[in-house]
Amino acid sequence: MEVIGVKVEKPIGIGENLAEALIRALEDSGIEIRDGDIIAVTSKVVSYSQGRLVRLSDVKPSAKAVEMALKYDLTPEIAELVIREADEIVGGVKRYILTIRNGVVLGNAGVDKSNAPYGMVVLPPANPEAVAHTLRHEIYEKVGVKTGVLIVDSRIEPLRRGTVGVALAVAGFEPLSDERGKPDIYGKPLLVTRRALADMLASAAELYFGERDELTPFVLIRGAPIRRTDRWIHSSVMFIPREECIFFGSMKHEDDAEDNG
Amino acid sequence: MEVIGVKVEKPIGIGENLAEALIRALEDSGIEIRDGDIIAVTSKVVSYSQGRLVRLSDVKPSAKAVEMALKYDLTPEIAELVIREADEIVGGVKRYILTIRNGVVLGNAGVDKSNAPYGMVVLPPANPEAVAHTLRHEIYEKVGVKTGVLIVDSRIEPLRRGTVGVALAVAGFEPLSDERGKPDIYGKPLLVTRRALADMLASAAELYFGERDELTPFVLIRGAPIRRTDRWIHSSVMFIPREECIFFGSMKHEDDAEDNG
Repeated sequence: MEVIGVKVEKPIGIGENLAEALIRALEDSGIEIRDGDIIAVTSKVVSYSQGRLVRLSDVKPSAKAVEMALKYDLTPEIAELVIREADEIVGGVKRYILTIRNGVVLGNAGVDKSNAPYGMVVLPPANPEAVAHTLRHEIYEKVGVKTGVLIVDSRIEPLRRGTVGVALAVAGFEPLSDERGKPDIYGKPLLVTRRALADMLASAAELYFGERDELTPFVLIRGAPIRRTDRWIHSSVMFIPREECIFFGSMKHEDDAEDNG
Repeated sequence: MEVIGVKVEKPIGIGENLAEALIRALEDSGIEIRDGDIIAVTSKVVSYSQGRLVRLSDVKPSAKAVEMALKYDLTPEIAELVIREADEIVGGVKRYILTIRNGVVLGNAGVDKSNAPYGMVVLPPANPEAVAHTLRHEIYEKVGVKTGVLIVDSRIEPLRRGTVGVALAVAGFEPLSDERGKPDIYGKPLLVTRRALADMLASAAELYFGERDELTPFVLIRGAPIRRTDRWIHSSVMFIPREECIFFGSMKHEDDAEDNG
């Protein structure tokens, strides 16, 4: 498998078409895209292409946001945006509110000041699933190759220092391998193993996105051990219900614990 | 970056030397190892090389193990081994006990029936940090190249279906990048971002290890965006204290909640 960062000459602008930006960046880099390549896109530029930026001085914090800002050491405006973007608030630590958004556990619901103009923040992308499938379709329309597309955000891991990649959405390939019933080296069937291929590819790509001024919004992955498909991949296939989750199933929410106390 | 699975002709045997097995596998595959390459090794073959296998009929479960086996739907022998290997038991769901071992959150403390002979289980490797540094040294002694070494286990992620890779230990390269204070695209300094390079490389490698009969115990990663070092890397630099962890800091343990109730 090859993992190749694709640089752009200037940052993706607000409202810019991603397929056009990608194809221009590939041409500038002298990289020819091929059938079966996976194009990974950092969620930040998806947000830019959707115009998902907000000026903090335009945000009016609610009373709940002021309370959360004090609790987690954030500005009330950021706390307000986190409340708006999160489907659920699970808890938090200093400077981070732990949220669930579109089924994915994210710090601060993906609301991010980094790589936003001064006084603004970038909101997480809207409907990454549709973005992935649309981008795949547009690449096919423009250059006639069938690629996979992977929308990547960065996330934290339990008890680990630093961020890794997570797949917000995929198109054109199966995001999971299902090993149940297949043999191990002794021929015994495996019982419970699925592998999060899309998340592992997201981490391989995230090595190249960086978090700062690298100007690498796309990563091309060639020869990945995945199975191609034309079916619509719903992001929800990558989620598990909370009661099956070893973390959420094992632990109580802060709020539950307060209720118990 | 290139990610290349390195196959062996037969499984790594109990007590086998990993450096010798690796060099033979590289020769058989016609792959020349180079200065700066990273060799990722799946934790399972580290356990085999250390003879860390146990016959289940030799395990005498304690009363505590019987109780946990009932609670989490495991056999008492497996529960006993999980209790022995875990530094701490955090909770669990059906068939999985959530544990911490050597600072890493793992299902069932890494005790695993898959790819073990019938009636036996593989225990997690002992002292992966020493294994990584020793293997790096032995590769240098045998073929004169300075590589990185990465010991990889598979792990689950909160609310996600499937497993990804996690770095148990590294040698020869810095496992984290520290972006604090570096500029974003607008020149604003980033405040809190570190990136878990070793975990992301572990996931890239894990795509090739598989969980079954692939006979790919090693993965060669060439041209990864890492910083090389000769200093001893302590695995603990990849951990964060529980109070800083957004998951553990946000949630109460099952046991804490019971104490509160």
